[in-house]
Amino acid sequence: MRIQRISVETPAHSCFVEITAKVQTIVHQSEIEDGIALIFVPHTTAGITLNENADPNVVRDMLTDLDRIAPDDQPYYRHFEGNSASHLKTSFVGNNLVIFIEGGNIVLGRWQGIYLCEFDGPRTRRVQIKIIPDME
Amino acid sequence: MRIQRISVETPAHSCFVEITAKVQTIVHQSEIEDGIALIFVPHTTAGITLNENADPNVVRDMLTDLDRIAPDDQPYYRHFEGNSASHLKTSFVGNNLVIFIEGGNIVLGRWQGIYLCEFDGPRTRRVQIKIIPDME
Amino acid sequence: MRIQRISVETPAHSCFVEITAKVQTIVHQSEIEDGIALIFVPHTTAGITLNENADPNVVRDMLTDLDRIAPDDQPYYRHFEGNSASHLKTSFVGNNLVIFIEGGNIVLGRWQGIYLCEFDGPRTRRVQIKIIPDME
Repeated sequence: MRIQRISVETPAHSCFVEITAKVQTIVHQSEIEDGIALIFVPHTTAGITLNENADPNVVRDMLTDLDRIAPDDQPYYRHFEGNSASHLKTSFVGNNLVIFIEGGNIVLGRWQGIYLCEFDGPRTRRVQIKIIPDME
Repeated sequence: MRIQRISVETPAHSCFVEITAKVQTIVHQSEIEDGIALIFVPHTTAGITLNENADPNVVRDMLTDLDRIAPDDQPYYRHFEGNSASHLKTSFVGNNLVIFIEGGNIVLGRWQGIYLCEFDGPRTRRVQIKIIPDME
Repeated sequence: MRIQRISVETPAHSCFVEITAKVQTIVHQSEIEDGIALIFVPHTTAGITLNENADPNVVRDMLTDLDRIAPDDQPYYRHFEGNSASHLKTSFVGNNLVIFIEGGNIVLGRWQGIYLCEFDGPRTRRVQIKIIPDME
């Protein structure tokens, strides 16, 4: 199917914005019963990951960890924008997800949510979704 | 094809459990000659990766590195379960793999094994596998 | 379609080598208008990622960060080759990418390039690419 494109507003410099419902809506609109949804983030300082969406402190702690592991403004940075840590964090979480579709719904674990990972916001980010139905 | 589900017992708090043979068995049972096998881990404190399966000290050293980079029980953690480092490690390795199938076999590099990455065990973990045959 | 295989020469111990043009060429040769290109690196000390290809200092800063976060030759390493940090970095960036194809071209963000990530070079590395056309 054609690539679907959605926009996501990110409210802070570093934050995870849950997009599970938006992905589910696109899958429902496709009327595909079984297949896969491929998700791609076309940015170099924002990525995508799956993680817990029950206690928001999990994401908060992960962001604190990431800032400790890759702090901004290292003295050795040469990139003129000074945001190389944001690029590194993006490569750590990655730009792709493959989500299964079964019976018309996305298949996630009980605690999993789909998060756009913003590392250089606030901004308007784009997410691309391509649905591939099973052949049977 | 339908999603296949397997169970994996993890013996320790942090460990990599090789599941290459289990994935190969499912591919053989599918009788697909050429295509892809998509692997998904529906957990938020366990992920999946490819890495060396010749010398078990590689995995051991990687686990030691991960505990150094993201130690448990940071004083700034607010998540009530205290296992935010396990969540972060999961997003580092990710929950997805795409494996090629050629001539009925999975195509891995000489030293590559498929590992379920446990970061909050021991537990019984689930792995989902979806095989997509080539159209030709 | 059949798996395509390309070779990439890496000039240093740690470096990112851009392969965007090579992937685009394979997509053009396939004459596929719409679909996906799956990329797989069959190594355990080299991976693949997307990141900025405008200012080469971004990649340089990322490599410096990675060496700070996972330095070689930790005193606790037991792997006889001493390159466990190279294995860890590979699992951090991963071995897979899923790239969309639209109108015969790969769909990347404005600043994104596809990089083979060498963490134990210089070497000749292999990259596998499998193109799956849309069914319509």
